[in-house]
Amino acid sequence: MNRAIAIIGGTGPAGTGLALRLAKAGEKIIIGSRDATRALQTADKIRVRVGPQAQVSGLENSAACAASDLLVLTVPFESQAELLKQLKPAIRPGSILIDATVPLAASVGGRANRILGVWQGSAAQQTAELVPKGVSVVAAFQNVSAEVLNGDEDVDCDVIVCSDDPAATQIAMELAAKIPRVRAIDGGKLENARIVEQITALLIGLNIRHKGHGGVRITGLPEAAYKAGPSSL
Amino acid sequence: MNRAIAIIGGTGPAGTGLALRLAKAGEKIIIGSRDATRALQTADKIRVRVGPQAQVSGLENSAACAASDLLVLTVPFESQAELLKQLKPAIRPGSILIDATVPLAASVGGRANRILGVWQGSAAQQTAELVPKGVSVVAAFQNVSAEVLNGDEDVDCDVIVCSDDPAATQIAMELAAKIPRVRAIDGGKLENARIVEQITALLIGLNIRHKGHGGVRITGLPEAAYKAGPSSL
Repeated sequence: MNRAIAIIGGTGPAGTGLALRLAKAGEKIIIGSRDATRALQTADKIRVRVGPQAQVSGLENSAACAASDLLVLTVPFESQAELLKQLKPAIRPGSILIDATVPLAASVGGRANRILGVWQGSAAQQTAELVPKGVSVVAAFQNVSAEVLNGDEDVDCDVIVCSDDPAATQIAMELAAKIPRVRAIDGGKLENARIVEQITALLIGLNIRHKGHGGVRITGLPEAAYKAGPSSL
Repeated sequence: MNRAIAIIGGTGPAGTGLALRLAKAGEKIIIGSRDATRALQTADKIRVRVGPQAQVSGLENSAACAASDLLVLTVPFESQAELLKQLKPAIRPGSILIDATVPLAASVGGRANRILGVWQGSAAQQTAELVPKGVSVVAAFQNVSAEVLNGDEDVDCDVIVCSDDPAATQIAMELAAKIPRVRAIDGGKLENARIVEQITALLIGLNIRHKGHGGVRITGLPEAAYKAGPSSL
C-alpha cells in the first residue's frame, strides 16, 4: 500500500508505538500532533529506530487529516471530543477513522482501572457522532499495551475490530495483522466497542496488581475468524 | 478437600458443566435445583459420565445451601435476585458464594451479546447486596463456555476472579485451577466483575458471528499471576 496513515495524537505513547510498528511493517506514516515540531521530532525518533527505509513524516493534526484518508486516533479521552470538533473540517469525506480511545476514569482524575460512562455507549461511538458524514469509524487497538508496542518484542495480543462498515473493518484488520503476532478479529458492530474499551481498564488493573503488560487473546473461534500477522520480525 | 461444593442452579448448562469438571477433579458436589428430583437426575447424569468414584448428590437449592459453605451460583440473571432472597435464611454464615451470573440483555428479552446496566455495577455486586452479612462473594467462571465445560476437551480459557475477600479469592482460584488448562487470575476487587461479566457478552457475540465457543486468555502477566490447572485429564 502506498496510502499514508495519519496517527492523530501520534506523539503519545500509544500513537508512537503504533506508528513504530506500522512503519516497521513498511507503511507510510504521518505523525499528527497539535504541535508540528513535536510531530517531526517523533517522526525522527521512529526513523532512527526503524532505519532509513522508514517512511515517516510529521504534521500538525489537521494537516495530517487533510493528507490522508486513513486516520488512527490515539488521544486521551479528555481530548477526544474537542479535538474531533476542531478537526472536523479537515477530515476528508470517505475517510476511515480507527479509534483507539478508552474512556478511562483517569481522564477526570479517577483511576485508570475504571471506566467512565459515555452517553453514546463508548468512546468510539462518541467519535462516530463527531466525525463528518460519510466517515467510517472503526474501534480497534484499545487493548494493545503502549509499552509493548514501543518495545522490540512481538505483541502477544489480539485486536478486536468493531465497526458498522464491513469494508472499514477489513482495512483495520489488515493493518492490525501487520504487527508481528497480533491477530485481528472481527468484533461486529461499533456498539461492541464499549466492551472492548472496558477490557483495557481491566488489563490496567491487572498490570497494577501483577506488574505486567497485559494483553488479551480470544480462544475457541475457528481459524478463519483470526487474521494473523507475521509470527515475528 | 472433603468439603462439599453446592452448585445452585446446577441443572442448567453452566452449572452442570462446572459440576462435571469439578466432580472429575475429585470434588464432592451437591447439585442444587428448585426441584430436588431434577437435581438428582443431573447428579445421576454426572455420575454416569465421571464414573462410580464421583461424589455427586442432588438437593433442593436451600437444602444445598444449608449443606455446604462453598456455593457456586449459576442461574440466569432474571432469577438471581429473587432466588437469593429466598435462599438468604439457608445460606450459612461464613460461606463463600462464587457467582458466575452475567446480566445478559437476553434476561429481559434482549440480545445475549448485550449487557444490562445493573444498579450495583454488576450481577456479582448485586449478589453481594443480597447475601447475609459475613458471606463472601466472589465473581468467577463467567467467561467459560458452558458447551466447552460439558464437553471432553480441555478448557482453553482463563478465569478472572474478583472479590473483596482475598481468602475467598484464593479458594475460588484453587477451584478454577482444578479444571484442566484453566488458569485462574486474581482480578482484584469485586467491582471489577462488571468488566469480566461484559466479556461474556462479547464472547457470545463472537460465537454467533464466527460459530465458535470463545474463551479469553490474559497475556503478558508474570508467571506468578497465573494459577494454572493440570494440563490435561
